[in-house]
Amino acid sequence: MDERSSGATYAASGVDQSAIGEALAALLSSVRYRPPPSHGRPVAAAGHFAGLVRIGRETIALTTDTVGTKVQLAAEVARWEEVGEDVVGVNVNDLAAVGARPSGLVDTILLERPDPSVLRAVGRGIDRGLRAAECALLGGETAVVPSIVRGMDLGGTAVGFFPRGRRPVTGAAIRPGDVILGIPSNGVHANGFTLVRKLLADSRVDVAQPGPSRRGSLAEELLRPTRIYSRAADALADRPETHGFAHLTGGGVRNLVRLHPKVAFVLDPWPTVPPIFSYLQRLGNISDEEMFQTFNMGIGFAVVVSPHRLAETRRRLGRAGAPDARPIGRVARGQGVSVPALGLEYSAYR
Amino acid sequence: MDERSSGATYAASGVDQSAIGEALAALLSSVRYRPPPSHGRPVAAAGHFAGLVRIGRETIALTTDTVGTKVQLAAEVARWEEVGEDVVGVNVNDLAAVGARPSGLVDTILLERPDPSVLRAVGRGIDRGLRAAECALLGGETAVVPSIVRGMDLGGTAVGFFPRGRRPVTGAAIRPGDVILGIPSNGVHANGFTLVRKLLADSRVDVAQPGPSRRGSLAEELLRPTRIYSRAADALADRPETHGFAHLTGGGVRNLVRLHPKVAFVLDPWPTVPPIFSYLQRLGNISDEEMFQTFNMGIGFAVVVSPHRLAETRRRLGRAGAPDARPIGRVARGQGVSVPALGLEYSAYR
Repeated sequence: MDERSSGATYAASGVDQSAIGEALAALLSSVRYRPPPSHGRPVAAAGHFAGLVRIGRETIALTTDTVGTKVQLAAEVARWEEVGEDVVGVNVNDLAAVGARPSGLVDTILLERPDPSVLRAVGRGIDRGLRAAECALLGGETAVVPSIVRGMDLGGTAVGFFPRGRRPVTGAAIRPGDVILGIPSNGVHANGFTLVRKLLADSRVDVAQPGPSRRGSLAEELLRPTRIYSRAADALADRPETHGFAHLTGGGVRNLVRLHPKVAFVLDPWPTVPPIFSYLQRLGNISDEEMFQTFNMGIGFAVVVSPHRLAETRRRLGRAGAPDARPIGRVARGQGVSVPALGLEYSAYR
Repeated sequence: MDERSSGATYAASGVDQSAIGEALAALLSSVRYRPPPSHGRPVAAAGHFAGLVRIGRETIALTTDTVGTKVQLAAEVARWEEVGEDVVGVNVNDLAAVGARPSGLVDTILLERPDPSVLRAVGRGIDRGLRAAECALLGGETAVVPSIVRGMDLGGTAVGFFPRGRRPVTGAAIRPGDVILGIPSNGVHANGFTLVRKLLADSRVDVAQPGPSRRGSLAEELLRPTRIYSRAADALADRPETHGFAHLTGGGVRNLVRLHPKVAFVLDPWPTVPPIFSYLQRLGNISDEEMFQTFNMGIGFAVVVSPHRLAETRRRLGRAGAPDARPIGRVARGQGVSVPALGLEYSAYR
């Protein structure tokens, strides 16, 4: 076995994307009903980050996601605010990726047992996330189901809209020559934690030790909440030079493929990878290919923009809380996503 | 101990509503943020079945719920279509309860392992539910999280709207003298299953035996999918004589309290209770009080209507798929919900 094939993979940690894909395809093959127009008109945006539906005089975007197994690391160290904030971030960033402005969130919390102090802390995190996204909590479901859930599952659904005159940003306008800007992430966010936890367990790592960036413990560094890109995307979504957005969530850089199937996204130069990712990669002897298709590797959100308006776009991003956005690549003729410096090529989202 | 206190309760089965209420209050006490009006204006409808937000020129209703532990009974007998249909029903019925027309659903499926044949059957059920509700599937999240979930959790979020000129039906217009119409349920729906499963386990009941109504096995009778009331509610929601709707879900008849805090809902006469409920009650030696605050007891949806338009309302319900709606009580001066024939009084929703 060579070094690459001996390394840890997301699939071996228990998350086999192809098996999930097959099951999901089976589910979707059964759902054929299309409602009459009097119930709203779904807007086609195949494979995109949010569902869209035209309701009366508005277009609504809907997205649902959970924090996943990051919650289990939170439980181990009894820190709950970060994952509370994540439940907002994982959802509103998917709204941001279609250019929708967030309006409301409902949370779905499944619990093994109800603990007011834990939920108070989760609530503080949700509040912080809502503040960053300028979004309201519209309701939720809190179910105590010890026969189904170990510990907690923390999910949500966000609804967003398109302010008067704005159209969804789908990526359809992307063309060769466009520039790809990347906005840094705040760490691992809420993806890949089944693998992260397996790496930690296999190497018997004490998460109370200092983290690789030496700012707090390893647990604190891993738990850093998902950066919220709502304001950045909202500042660009009305501009014709903004051709596409991508939330680099589960699937890593492959998420760019979701924007346009018939152009090539060339990520060059990829910024210096933050220490937390290098640490995880060493811990599991993980290949670059696996890292870039599982984690965000330091860039949580991408903006595809016409090269003629690059400076103006960066100024807008600076005013909207993202002065650290930087060029990370370009759009070329071809297909798929590549990171030439590392010899990586991906042809599909998953 | 008298007979009543020796009977099974929902709390003793592991669902302690007061502990859940305390934890939920802790969560909500932490969430204080209110977004600026440019992000939509939440519409106050305290304690109601769905969250409402004014977005641009439309009002949107959002509701989230899961099928809960009914999924575990489905797993025991490997029948998945019914719970698939439930994931639509539990959500769109909450939209119906505010008079919103369903438009879109996103599903959230948490799995221990992906099984295409199971998800294909779940999908068939979802499709059937969408058809009954005239609602589109807009997206979803399918996560394989064996470290969090045993078997499956099946949840969703539905978005609805108010066709031009319609206002949310909140119950504010309810007044003494109004008539309460009840639309029968299709059985236990998707509530109280933690108690149901405990009763079955404690009595070592074989769910393959014939059910109490002798139409199929006990498992089949328990799994019958949530009846969908969307068309019935949609047919009445534009009418000024329609004063309120209630979805009799978890909390049983107490759900009526959510409509108006300052009137009394007198349920008299309550219709003959379907055999499945009498069977469960005998199995656990459960008090009437506990039964009516846990299960729907045969009525899944209530309509509160002005007495002057009763005949017309019933005609409309008949044309909208609910010819079996019947008067189940009246609104009086006072507070809370009562079932006089059984000596039951409830002062609060939970």
